[in-house]
Amino acid sequence: MTDLERLTAAVLRFRDERDWKQFHNPKDVALSLLLEAGEVLEIFQWKDPAGVAEAARARKADLADELADVLSYTLLMAHDLGIDLDAALRAKLEKNALKYPVDKAKGSSGKYTDL
Amino acid sequence: MTDLERLTAAVLRFRDERDWKQFHNPKDVALSLLLEAGEVLEIFQWKDPAGVAEAARARKADLADELADVLSYTLLMAHDLGIDLDAALRAKLEKNALKYPVDKAKGSSGKYTDL
Amino acid sequence: MTDLERLTAAVLRFRDERDWKQFHNPKDVALSLLLEAGEVLEIFQWKDPAGVAEAARARKADLADELADVLSYTLLMAHDLGIDLDAALRAKLEKNALKYPVDKAKGSSGKYTDL
Amino acid sequence: MTDLERLTAAVLRFRDERDWKQFHNPKDVALSLLLEAGEVLEIFQWKDPAGVAEAARARKADLADELADVLSYTLLMAHDLGIDLDAALRAKLEKNALKYPVDKAKGSSGKYTDL
Repeated sequence: MTDLERLTAAVLRFRDERDWKQFHNPKDVALSLLLEAGEVLEIFQWKDPAGVAEAARARKADLADELADVLSYTLLMAHDLGIDLDAALRAKLEKNALKYPVDKAKGSSGKYTDL
Repeated sequence: MTDLERLTAAVLRFRDERDWKQFHNPKDVALSLLLEAGEVLEIFQWKDPAGVAEAARARKADLADELADVLSYTLLMAHDLGIDLDAALRAKLEKNALKYPVDKAKGSSGKYTDL
Repeated sequence: MTDLERLTAAVLRFRDERDWKQFHNPKDVALSLLLEAGEVLEIFQWKDPAGVAEAARARKADLADELADVLSYTLLMAHDLGIDLDAALRAKLEKNALKYPVDKAKGSSGKYTDL
Repeated sequence: MTDLERLTAAVLRFRDERDWKQFHNPKDVALSLLLEAGEVLEIFQWKDPAGVAEAARARKADLADELADVLSYTLLMAHDLGIDLDAALRAKLEKNALKYPVDKAKGSSGKYTDL
C-alpha cells in the first residue's frame, strides 16, 4: 500500500464510521475543499512579507491543521472520482513542462501565454 | 523515500529548474492553492445532482489535472513551511474524531457545535 | 450623490478614520473580498435543497452581514481602481446578452460555448 | 427607485428573460459569487507590489468586468433572500466600528481580538 493509499484509507474509514458518504457528492466535497483552502489563505490576510514570514512561524500548527484538511478532501475526491493522484500529478508536471519550458520560463512568473 | 516525499521532490525539481522559488512565499502559494481549488469547483457550477454525476464522468481528465494542481501546491506549502503532511493529516483525523464522536455524529451533517 | 457613491463614501470614511488605506492595495482587497464571499457560501456547506432554503431563512442576519462585507470590499476596490461600478455592471449585462442571446440561452444553464 | 434597486431590476430582468431563476438557489448563487471573486483575485496572482499596481492600470477593463459580475451576484442574492443591502452595509459598518474602535484600531491591521 502506498502512502497516499494508506492516508486515503484513514480518511475513508473516518467517513464510513460516521456514515457520511451520503453527503459526499463531488460538488459538495469540492466546495469544502475550496473553503479549507480559504482557511489556509486567511492566516496570511493583510500581511506584508515580514508578517507572512512571522505567521508561517507563529501559526505553523494551524497551517498544519488546515493543510491536512485540504489534503483530506483532495484524497477523498480523487478516491470517489476514481483518480490516481500520483499518476495525475506526474502527468500534470509533464504538461506544465511543455507550457513552461525551462529556457523560456526560467526566472519568470509570467503566464505561459506571455512567454 | 515515501510517496509524498517523492512527489514533493518532483514538484520541487520542477520549481528549481525554472528558478521559481523566488516567487513562492506562503501567502502567494496559498492564494494559488485557493484558485486551483476554485478550478475544481467550477466544473460543477450550476449543476444539479444528475449534472454533477455526469460531469464527474465526462470531465474526469480535467478533474485529475485540477486535483493534481491542488496537491502540487499543498505539497509545496508543506515543504516550505517544514510541515510533515502525513503526520498532520493523521493528527487532524484524531482531533476531528474528538469533535465528531461516532455515537453523536453518525449520519449527521451538522456542525460539531450542533451535535 | 448616488446610493453607490453614498455607500462608498461611508466605507471610505470608516477606512480613513482608522488610517487603514495603507493596507489597501488591490491584491489584498481582492483577497479579502474572496474570503468574505467564502463566508457567504460556508452558510450553505453540505446542505441539500431543503437545508439551503432553511438556512436562507434561519441565517438571514448572518447572510446580510456577509453580503454587506462583500459589497463593502467591492465598492472599495472599484473606488481605488477608478471604476464606475454602475456603468460597469450595465456594460457587463450587455456583453452577457451577446454571449447568452435569449433565443439560445432561455431555460438552459449551459456555458455559452455549449449553446 | 434607488440605484441599487435599479441595478437589481436590470439583473433580474436579464435573468427572467432567460428563464434562469430555476437555477438560482442561494447555494448555487453563493458558489458563483465566490468563483467571480476568484476571477478578480487571479488578475493579481504572483504579482509583487509593482506588478499589482501595473495590473490595476493595464487590466482595468477586466477588473471592471469581474467586479460587475461580483456585484451582479451580490444584488441577486440579496434580492432572493429579501435583504436590504443598503441597510445591511450601514449596519455592518456600525458593528465593525464597535469591534474596531478608532482609538484602538487606528493604523493597525491586527484582528480585533489582538487589539
